[in-house]
Amino acid sequence: MTGKMCAYDLIKKKRDGMELFRDELAFLITKYLSNEIPDSQMSAFLMAVYFKGMTDNETSALTELMLSSGSRIDFSDISAPKVDKHSTGGVGDKTSIILAPLMAAMNVKVPMLAGRGLGHTGGTIDKLESIPNFRTSLSIEEFRGNVRDIGLSIISPTDEIAPADKRLYGLRDMTASVESIPLIAASIMSKKLSEGAEGLVLDVKVGKGAFMKTIQDARKLARTMVNIGNSSGVKTVAIITDMNQPLGRTIGNGLEIKECISALRGKMADDLKEVVLTLGAWMVYVADCVTEEATISRLPEHVVIKYKAELMDFIEKGDAFKKFAEFVDAQHGDPEVAFKPNLIPSAGKVKQVKVAEKGYIQTMDAEKAGIAAMLLGAGRQRAEDVIDHSAGIVINKKVGDYITPDEPVAIFHYNDESRLKDAEEVFFSGVQLSEIPPDRKAIIIEVIL
Amino acid sequence: MTGKMCAYDLIKKKRDGMELFRDELAFLITKYLSNEIPDSQMSAFLMAVYFKGMTDNETSALTELMLSSGSRIDFSDISAPKVDKHSTGGVGDKTSIILAPLMAAMNVKVPMLAGRGLGHTGGTIDKLESIPNFRTSLSIEEFRGNVRDIGLSIISPTDEIAPADKRLYGLRDMTASVESIPLIAASIMSKKLSEGAEGLVLDVKVGKGAFMKTIQDARKLARTMVNIGNSSGVKTVAIITDMNQPLGRTIGNGLEIKECISALRGKMADDLKEVVLTLGAWMVYVADCVTEEATISRLPEHVVIKYKAELMDFIEKGDAFKKFAEFVDAQHGDPEVAFKPNLIPSAGKVKQVKVAEKGYIQTMDAEKAGIAAMLLGAGRQRAEDVIDHSAGIVINKKVGDYITPDEPVAIFHYNDESRLKDAEEVFFSGVQLSEIPPDRKAIIIEVIL
Repeated sequence: MTGKMCAYDLIKKKRDGMELFRDELAFLITKYLSNEIPDSQMSAFLMAVYFKGMTDNETSALTELMLSSGSRIDFSDISAPKVDKHSTGGVGDKTSIILAPLMAAMNVKVPMLAGRGLGHTGGTIDKLESIPNFRTSLSIEEFRGNVRDIGLSIISPTDEIAPADKRLYGLRDMTASVESIPLIAASIMSKKLSEGAEGLVLDVKVGKGAFMKTIQDARKLARTMVNIGNSSGVKTVAIITDMNQPLGRTIGNGLEIKECISALRGKMADDLKEVVLTLGAWMVYVADCVTEEATISRLPEHVVIKYKAELMDFIEKGDAFKKFAEFVDAQHGDPEVAFKPNLIPSAGKVKQVKVAEKGYIQTMDAEKAGIAAMLLGAGRQRAEDVIDHSAGIVINKKVGDYITPDEPVAIFHYNDESRLKDAEEVFFSGVQLSEIPPDRKAIIIEVIL
Repeated sequence: MTGKMCAYDLIKKKRDGMELFRDELAFLITKYLSNEIPDSQMSAFLMAVYFKGMTDNETSALTELMLSSGSRIDFSDISAPKVDKHSTGGVGDKTSIILAPLMAAMNVKVPMLAGRGLGHTGGTIDKLESIPNFRTSLSIEEFRGNVRDIGLSIISPTDEIAPADKRLYGLRDMTASVESIPLIAASIMSKKLSEGAEGLVLDVKVGKGAFMKTIQDARKLARTMVNIGNSSGVKTVAIITDMNQPLGRTIGNGLEIKECISALRGKMADDLKEVVLTLGAWMVYVADCVTEEATISRLPEHVVIKYKAELMDFIEKGDAFKKFAEFVDAQHGDPEVAFKPNLIPSAGKVKQVKVAEKGYIQTMDAEKAGIAAMLLGAGRQRAEDVIDHSAGIVINKKVGDYITPDEPVAIFHYNDESRLKDAEEVFFSGVQLSEIPPDRKAIIIEVIL
């Protein structure tokens, strides 16, 4: 009978499929952070969102509320364009570590807050921590300084960044409401908008090794995030890319850093190269749009090709590689690592794993390969697990390659062999051979503006 | 990768629409009661149940788990059949207070755990508490003694009764997952099965003033509860009855007790009489089935009529009325009340409320009438609100009656007039007149075996 707002009514409203107003979401978030709304009500609300979704207005409002629960980093003193990228997560996805120094070399500043891996997926922060002495927890001031002085920095979000997201994510993670597109979009974007970048290129992964298993879901997530970004004044574009097989030649933290160093010297597997150059092309274009205050539009293929060539040029000249060495140094890592990748610890044991028959590799399930790497020690089953930075998998043959039982399809790197057998089993359960070569599928699937 | 049970997986399983095994539900309930599973996970689980439902097996298992979280009252020393009734809640529904002494007079013992009212609905416990000195909190021993010695007792569930239900209900009540048929069924039945009765007649209300608004939902709830009861060895039948208009002539605690006293002396409104006698007929029949170890079957109309006549006989002989007086005395109430109903406190003010036009009453919305009574002080908006036992509404004209602006459609009884205007408004928003008499609808809709 009274008009006073209460958590119960808002849970019920969402449960019954109605749209919440901005001030209603603000009430929920504010009172939750001040502990006036208990976890029990918030988790019921989040489960209702899981089932009933959120409108674009709700998702934008939630993102802004989570964003403004913390600080937004101020880069107004840096005139060069600041553009970040973000991947929704995959297996063997190390593009951030190649793209950030490459962009910095081209005077596009990259202020990047990154995450850790969980389950079958890897995380940029874990990968960087395989570099001896490398620090991923810097103060906001040091982060800003590095972006200003060398053009890039990659750190874990500090406590000042979107604390509401941190609490909500923790709650979702224990109450099975993580897999909700609007909640995923708001969580990612609240952190990305905190970075103070003016442009953002999103790599939305789709397929066996991605969180989005279908193109429909990937499109929905991409569209939601692009809307949030643009409605918050950050020029945002999303590229949907294939994540059915592991990306590149390695899975596992130290191994992937070594692959990144090779890539920054110009040596990249075809699929990795295509993703890096395409995302890079869009990052440069978005940076141009920021500088020229232009609207992002669809790029004709020949323009993308021109940008890609420019990027390869910066790699081949050695500028991107040099920037990587500076970046490692600035984050207290051993700067020699860039020149001597073997300074990154290697696993004590390796095993060549082979197929029983011969044929063309039809599929190499990225999720299964990711779980295999996790079982070797490269990943975490639970957030609190400790990882082995040297463990992982080197992929010798990829989808479309011909393989015989005489040569390894992959090489497992590990120290603890207790789950080696499980790892092999799950890895091979995802490998299928055929007598004829599979159709080649494009890795770049769609651009969402 | 490990087979260890965890709350997260069980929430996810339910969220994804899968059936939980009994041991999985047992894990959830046991760990929740021992505080190893937090409210946040349980409320997410309950919201997932709200959306995904429960199978009959799950609902029965949940009921038994809640039941066995507390004591089940042992009446094995009493040879007479023990049969209870339960109503899913309505407006003006005072049948329990008439039926329990009537059954006791016929040597069917009634061990009844009853509840309080909330929102537009009344509760048996609140009604009884309008009798001066009446106690609704008795020990289990006193309850057993009264059932044995006088044949009936009506109390609030003690702390020993289904404590898991108490905690789950509290959580659902604050997280908007009350309105779930399997959860409603399990909650009701866990308490009803604790009573130690051998038979149970359920009055499942349907219509504007009931929790179940559609016949489909009412059938589903009835069917679910009948299954739970029978699968637990309690002979159970459900009668679906109409709750579109208030039942009988009064709404409000003291007023309803006065109406019960009249009823026990043989004076009942037609609709109330039909519900009381039908439920009573089934209670006597169920008691017979208990005694004869027979299966409940569908009763031919002439048999129901025979039972009803027998019931009227016990009312008219004064046996039911006498039993009521004994019952009040046994629960420490003023036994004079049965003979002098005016000992029940009356409201300080009354107001005749009238219609503006004349015509046949087409509808008198039970929910709106219930809310009007609540606004006059007879009910609670929130569980913690204090009620005025003397407040309420006397219904002068019912659906089908002809009414003019010269005579009152109802009489409002109240002490606090602050919400009198609101009460009138909401009451009349539910009253519709027409020039022709409405079709007469049966109040007894269906029997579910």
